[in-house]
Formats: sequence, C-alpha cells, structure tokens
Amino acid sequence: MSNQETINIAVAGPRGKMGKEALQMIAKTGHFRCVAAIDRKNEGKRIKELEGFPDLDTPIYTDIDQCFSEHPVDVLIDFTHPEAGKYHVEKAIAYGVRPVVGTSGFSEADVEHLSSLAEEKGVGTIIAPNFAIGAVLMMKFSQMAARHFPDVEIIELHHDQKRDAPSGTAVKTAEMIQQTRKEKKQGHPEEKELIKGARGADFDGFRIHSVRLPGLIAHQQVLFGGEGELLTLRHDSMNRESFMHGVRVAVETVMDLKTLVYGLENILE
Amino acid sequence: MSNQETINIAVAGPRGKMGKEALQMIAKTGHFRCVAAIDRKNEGKRIKELEGFPDLDTPIYTDIDQCFSEHPVDVLIDFTHPEAGKYHVEKAIAYGVRPVVGTSGFSEADVEHLSSLAEEKGVGTIIAPNFAIGAVLMMKFSQMAARHFPDVEIIELHHDQKRDAPSGTAVKTAEMIQQTRKEKKQGHPEEKELIKGARGADFDGFRIHSVRLPGLIAHQQVLFGGEGELLTLRHDSMNRESFMHGVRVAVETVMDLKTLVYGLENILE
Amino acid sequence: MSNQETINIAVAGPRGKMGKEALQMIAKTGHFRCVAAIDRKNEGKRIKELEGFPDLDTPIYTDIDQCFSEHPVDVLIDFTHPEAGKYHVEKAIAYGVRPVVGTSGFSEADVEHLSSLAEEKGVGTIIAPNFAIGAVLMMKFSQMAARHFPDVEIIELHHDQKRDAPSGTAVKTAEMIQQTRKEKKQGHPEEKELIKGARGADFDGFRIHSVRLPGLIAHQQVLFGGEGELLTLRHDSMNRESFMHGVRVAVETVMDLKTLVYGLENILE
Amino acid sequence: MSNQETINIAVAGPRGKMGKEALQMIAKTGHFRCVAAIDRKNEGKRIKELEGFPDLDTPIYTDIDQCFSEHPVDVLIDFTHPEAGKYHVEKAIAYGVRPVVGTSGFSEADVEHLSSLAEEKGVGTIIAPNFAIGAVLMMKFSQMAARHFPDVEIIELHHDQKRDAPSGTAVKTAEMIQQTRKEKKQGHPEEKELIKGARGADFDGFRIHSVRLPGLIAHQQVLFGGEGELLTLRHDSMNRESFMHGVRVAVETVMDLKTLVYGLENILE
Repeated sequence: MSNQETINIAVAGPRGKMGKEALQMIAKTGHFRCVAAIDRKNEGKRIKELEGFPDLDTPIYTDIDQCFSEHPVDVLIDFTHPEAGKYHVEKAIAYGVRPVVGTSGFSEADVEHLSSLAEEKGVGTIIAPNFAIGAVLMMKFSQMAARHFPDVEIIELHHDQKRDAPSGTAVKTAEMIQQTRKEKKQGHPEEKELIKGARGADFDGFRIHSVRLPGLIAHQQVLFGGEGELLTLRHDSMNRESFMHGVRVAVETVMDLKTLVYGLENILE
Repeated sequence: MSNQETINIAVAGPRGKMGKEALQMIAKTGHFRCVAAIDRKNEGKRIKELEGFPDLDTPIYTDIDQCFSEHPVDVLIDFTHPEAGKYHVEKAIAYGVRPVVGTSGFSEADVEHLSSLAEEKGVGTIIAPNFAIGAVLMMKFSQMAARHFPDVEIIELHHDQKRDAPSGTAVKTAEMIQQTRKEKKQGHPEEKELIKGARGADFDGFRIHSVRLPGLIAHQQVLFGGEGELLTLRHDSMNRESFMHGVRVAVETVMDLKTLVYGLENILE
Repeated sequence: MSNQETINIAVAGPRGKMGKEALQMIAKTGHFRCVAAIDRKNEGKRIKELEGFPDLDTPIYTDIDQCFSEHPVDVLIDFTHPEAGKYHVEKAIAYGVRPVVGTSGFSEADVEHLSSLAEEKGVGTIIAPNFAIGAVLMMKFSQMAARHFPDVEIIELHHDQKRDAPSGTAVKTAEMIQQTRKEKKQGHPEEKELIKGARGADFDGFRIHSVRLPGLIAHQQVLFGGEGELLTLRHDSMNRESFMHGVRVAVETVMDLKTLVYGLENILE
Repeated sequence: MSNQETINIAVAGPRGKMGKEALQMIAKTGHFRCVAAIDRKNEGKRIKELEGFPDLDTPIYTDIDQCFSEHPVDVLIDFTHPEAGKYHVEKAIAYGVRPVVGTSGFSEADVEHLSSLAEEKGVGTIIAPNFAIGAVLMMKFSQMAARHFPDVEIIELHHDQKRDAPSGTAVKTAEMIQQTRKEKKQGHPEEKELIKGARGADFDGFRIHSVRLPGLIAHQQVLFGGEGELLTLRHDSMNRESFMHGVRVAVETVMDLKTLVYGLENILE
C-alpha cells in the first residue's frame, strides 16, 4: 500500500503517556487520521475537550464494539495493559481492524492465541514491547554480530534515579545475543577481581556493566572484540519521542501483513 | 561440511603481507592444511626455507597447473593482483578448486565472467575486497539502518601518515548507505560555515569527516540521528590480524557454495 | 565564607530563560535567599504573581538604586544584556554588592573598566560567558593538554536546527588551545581531500569538525594524539539546567573575592 | 635551560623493555646524547654490540662510580628495580647527576630519604611510576573534575589476557579522585542488582567497571555526571612508545629542578 493513502486509526489508552504521544504523532503525520479513541472513561467526549491534549475532534468510546461499528478503522494502536490489550486485539481482528500493540506483558500463550486468530482471519497484527527503532536495531545487529564475535560485553548507562541493574533493554539484548553466540566463558580463565564486582554481571559467560549518573538519560553500548579489532554498537535515547518513529513504521507495515508479527525487529529488514 | 574435516589449501602470493599472514593463520588453524604455495619465483623450494616464514614444509610452485595436478586442493587463497588473480581463479575453477580471493581491483566484467564460470562448473567462489569482518558488519549494518534513519554522518579517524581523505572504507560505506537511504539534504537548510570545511565532505546530501592524529590506527563511526535518539556504529581496527578472521570464515563458507559471491557482507548472515 | 551562611541574592532579568532558571535554582538551594528582582517592568509586583514562576514572595523593582537601598543584598545575579548589565555592575559595585554576570557580549574595554571599579572598591565580581562547569572544565583541560600534545582535533556535535558551524564553544576551545599549543600544521604534509571539506575547518593548523543530526543536543569532544596514545575530553550538555551548577559555584566563590574575575575557568581550581 | 643545549644521558637497565626503548628515544632526539649505560653485565662492551639494539657507540659499565667518574653525565635514566634504583639515585645525587626514575615499587620511606638527599645537594630528581603523559593527564584532570562533580564512575577496558580487575591505573585514578571528591554514595539509595556485579566494584561510594575483550589494548574512561551534563575523560594507550614521550619531558624538566618530584602529574602544569 502506498504511504500516501490515508490510514484511519483508533487509539486505545489515549490518556497514558504513550497513548497521548501517539495522538500527537498521528496529528503530525499527513496521511494518518485519528478517527476514534477507546478509553475506560470520557464516553461521548472529544479528545480536544481533555486538558493538555491535541486539538483533535476525535470521539471517545468506552465500548469497543460501538467504536468499530460506527467507524471504518484501518489500524488500532493499543497502549493499555495486557488484559485490556488482549480483549482489544481479539475484537479488532474480528472486525478486520489491524492491531499495533505496545502493551508489554503478554504471556507466550496469549501471543500464540492471538497469532492463530490473526492467521485465521488474515488480519495483520504487530505486538512489540519496544518501539524505539534505534534500540531495536542495536539489539538486532548485536544478535547478528554475536554469530561472528563470541567475545562480547554490554555497558548500559542510565540516570541515577533508575533502581534496577541491569536495565531491561540490556537483559533483552543479552538474551538475543545468547541465541546466536557460540557458548564461551569470556575473559582470562584465571582473571581475579581485586574489588568484588569489577567484572560486572555474568550472563551466560559474558558480562553486563551498569553505570548510573545524573546527567545520563538512557544509553547502551555493546562491544564485540576480535583479534585486532573491535565492533561497537551504541544507542542513545534522549526522550520518549523516539518511540513514535517506530509506531509510525509499524502502522504503515501492518497494512501489508496477513499474520501476527511479534517484536519490531522482525519487521525491520 | 563440518568444521572438523581438514581443508587442504593452496596460497597464491605467499610473500605479500596478506599472503604471509594467511600462511600463519593456516598454520594456527587446526583443521586447515597448507598443501601448496603458488609464487612467481622460488620454484621447488619449501615455505620454511624462506626467511621469516612459518615452519611449513609446503612446496612452492610457479606453475599453477602443476600445482593443482600434483595436489588435492580444496581451496585456493589468492592475495596477488587482478591480472594474476583472474588467471588463477579461472584455473582453479577448471580444476574444481574453490577460490577465496582478497585481490581488489577486479572490473565488473571480470567478476561477471568469473561468476559464469563458477556457476557453470558449480564451484563455490568468494571474491572480497575487504576481509575485516568487523568493518564489513559495520558497513552492512549502516546500510540496514539508513533505511530507517536518513539523517546520517560518518566520522573516520586514522593515523596522520594517511594522505587521502576520506578513507576508502568511508567512501564504500557511504555508497552502501546511498543505496537504501531516502535522498535528503542533511542539516539545517540555512546552515552556514563560519570556517570553510567545518561541515565536512558532502556525499549525496550527507557528511563525511576525516580526523588524522598520531596515536590513531584505523577507526570509523557512523552516526544515525532520529527524533530523540541516536544510533552509532563504530569499528576500531588495531592491526592486520583482523583480516584473517574473515579469510578463515570465507574458507569455511566457500566449501558449501556452488556459485560466486562478491563481498564478504553477502556471506555474513 | 561557610556554605551554610545565608547569601541574599537579587536577580536582574528574571523573565529571561536564564533568569527564570536562576530563580528556581535559588529556591532549591538551602542557604540562598532571593531578596529582590530587577526587571524593566512589573514594578511593585512579586515574583509569584508572574505566571509560570516559582512561588517566591520576592519584590520586583525597576529602579536598581531603590532595590539596593531597601534590601541588604550580598550578590547580584545578572542575566540581562551588555548595556543594562554594565550599568547594573557599576551600581552593584558602588553599593558593595558582588555581581555574578552571565551576560555575554561585554567588550574588552568594558571588562577592564569594571575590573578597575571592582579593584578600587574591593568588591568581588565574576563575569562569565559560559556557566556550564563541565564545558568550562573541558576547555580548561584542553588548554592544559595542548601544552604536551600539539596534535589535536575538535569534533562538535549538535542538533540539526543549529545554523552556525563550528559552534561558539568549539571556536572558544580552539582559541584557548592556541594559547598553549606549539604551532604546527597538523596532518600529513601531502594530505589530499578526495571530497572537499573532508578534513574539516582549519584553525591555526588544526581541524574542527561539525556534526549536525536530529537526536543530538550539544556535545563536543577534543582529541589529542601522541605516539601510541590518545587523550579524549568530551562534554555532553543535555539541557540548560547544567548552567545553574556553575552559577551556584560562582555565587559562593564571589563572596570571597576582592577583584573581578573573567571566565568561570579562572575560579575552578 | 633551552631545549637546544645537548643533554648527556646515562641509562641504567638498558636491556629491559623500557631501558631499550629509552635508548631508542635518546637516539631519535636531536639534543639528547647517550654517553653511558649501566648494566649488571656486558662490562666494557658497546650498546651497538648487543643484538637488536640501536647503533650507539655508548660504553657499558657495571660500576656506577667508574661511569660517573669517566663521563660528564647530566641525567641518569633508571629503569631497573627498587633496590638497584635506590642505590643508583644515591650515587647520582652524590655526583650531581639528575635522576629520572621509572622504577616502581619505592617505599614511602625510600622516597623521603632520597628527597632529603636531593634537597641537601640541590640536585633535581624525578621519580614516576607512570610516564604515559596522556594517562597521567587523565588522572590529574579526573582529580580536578571530582572537586565539582562528586558523581563519577570509571570504566577501564583491556585485552582479555589481563588477569587483575580493576587495573592498576583505575585504582590509582580512584585514589586521586578520592582526595578531592566530596564523600558520597553514588547511585539511587535503593538500587538493586538483578544480576550480581552489574553495578561494578564499589570504591569509597563510586563504581569501577572492568571490560576484557580481545582486540582491546589499554583504555580507560572516567565519567562525571551533573544535572543535565556529562564530562568524560578518556585515554587510549596503543603501545609502549607512549611512555617515552613522558620520559623525554621528564629529562628536560629535571634540568631545571633543585629538589625531588614524585609523580609525573606534578611536573605537568
């Protein structure tokens, strides 16, 4: 489908951080049109009546059946939570509306179930826990590079308000690397920590390091070492806007799909 | 083919820098065996008789026909020059020996001609101007990322004995990016150079910067910018050893090929 | 003076971006008290009456004499413009109030004149065109390093809405480096640009490169190369908040000065 | 003293790695002259008679008294070991020869003792455990920056043949930072390691991370974070040649000293 044809979009979860940014992204994208919003409250209101929202005349529904009956919707963008998200995707597929879902926390069984539904009806569906294209490419490239460079370490750097170490993205990257990397205990066999923790967290034989400093936002670098060379992949995320680039690509891509795709990395060639 | 089966290798151009490193790499790789060398001189000598060479009992031939007649060769590693290289590849294919060629400077017509020969005889052949796997992955990933990030700049950094700017790798990377990037003039439309050259070299609307300093060896980073995020791919090449990693992978891969592949990037999944 | 004693501060230019941030910084700093504001308008109002301002009961004056007569002020923070700034500093020194001035654009003659006044009265004064401590340290360290490493290049990286290249900070850094660096034409004597501009802007024999990409904010790195080693100084500025760290240090430092100091680098040991 | 006047140098420990490089450095430096070598063996030979050494007609002595009696020596470069080094320095000071010592492992008492001798005789002396100017500047700048940025983390990166983590340079840097940094437990008070070691080694409340990969040589970066900004100091050491830059500076500087200086950082303004 040409990018120039208008795509009619409904947004579920419009009052969340991501939902609100999705509304703004749609408002700024020429060939996207926001035809409806699905919210637990505000039935009958318009988006522009909510304080701090873009000036969209989009009607708000609490009943998803009513929404899909009254409006010709091409794509549903869903940023709610796993339970509501699952229900929305089932409904959307039944109505022939293509879901793009940023809700994380779906179980494997949920994904399989929705995948069967999508295939049966031939309705393109994208579920992605991470829509930051740059981050997703960094992970995808890391997975590809690990096939040739089994010696790898991850350094992730975040602001000092973050509590968990390593970050979710670092762990997800490590899991993806694990799938292609030849198993190996990285580092010198007799290496010794003079101060405990110096060599970082051990993940299946390679190391993850977590830096926390004020001034940092969200950064990660993956270092691959080989004889006489080093390959480094780095992603810097400055703010949440970056996610909408990925949502936009997903909306355009889902129009051409007939099945469910899980993970943005699988629609980025 | 299993990595464990021995691969019998002939090396053409054993006295060049790359040829000599190839001999050393073969000597260090358990399942590789160097069965012959092809050289313009030293007919009848053994590799170990040449000063500064590894202790290999490998015989040296000036006649490639004689070499392939007397020895069962699986793979020919060729680091000579385009003219000799072309002749060697033709001969190798005729004898069913798989060529791995690091000679740069083949014309497009040469490559097409050799490709036909290889296909006709069903003999796997790899020709690659660059065997540094890390550098090749950096270029391949850059090409993939450019599809989603049209805003890109390249910074290449080399020792100050280098005369040409930008480097060959930077130009090659730029050409690969050009193939997938949506055309765009990068930077602010009204940007102004207060000192000439500040914004670097213009390549099809994006910029290349060349840094030259003592202490540097050979480095390149490719920066992709999007709303709120940055993706950086960096390669550091510390010495020539890194090339042999790629040659080793090519030797193993060519055993399973039936046609000619040009460019290491096309055998790295 | 101990950091614990309260410092009474007046802010000139409270409605500008920097002035407003200064008010917020003062409100958040335990031992700072904002006793008055000097503004061209809003005479008689209170800061908290201005929309979007912190909840400070601070009175606003248009007449600086009246302000200094009615309030015991220790330090004047001035973020106005050179003309008003000069007048404010003269008045402040006359009243024994220590000025901390972030207004850029003072002429050399202005600075000399104000320096004489400050010395005569023994009133500490700080004028600094840049209050980002990290950036100022990067410049100071660059100047120190250039004494030992005459081979240097600057790479500055900014968002693609910036029009001028190189950035003001890069030029200022280059000027500071020039003062200690042994003159030298950097790079190979016969280096050749295959694409014009590749080697960047020439500043007294060394090079400056300007990168512009969306996603970038304001970054600079200074690379020093020597035989077998590289020293890199990098500053990343994520937002304007970083300036207030420097203003806070200047306010504390000016309490102990008896003369005028120009440039934050001269109060950072 | 002008750099152009010839400096006559004796080298103790000429057969060690550093001693040999010192000989080469002297041979390449126009105004340096190698007048004698002090070695445990090879009495009466010349440097050029040793295999693999530069073509210097320098005589070798095993008796340091005889050496200093027969030759007018300005500076003694000593790369032996603490015991011999201490004896050499005592002798040199007695003869009015200025010692430049790269031997590490002197006790504090040794340094104090030699310092008294140097002061008494007015003979300039430099003892430095590290002569890599870039590394020493990185440490010195880190110490200066820590005064303003108490939030700091160190990442050191080395080849995977290194056994100890963190590196000696990282620990030395941490100790220097500790002297100026306001004590603080860095990171979120409730931060939690999901995988043990993720947050690195704890050194007095800040963190050190050790990366080990083939392809790496010897690198370190020190990151300072403040509100909205980041200052990064990085040193890359590619090979041992970099040390000789520091030795050369020390030889020139020691000519103007009258006392003992410990640590290269104290002669680099």
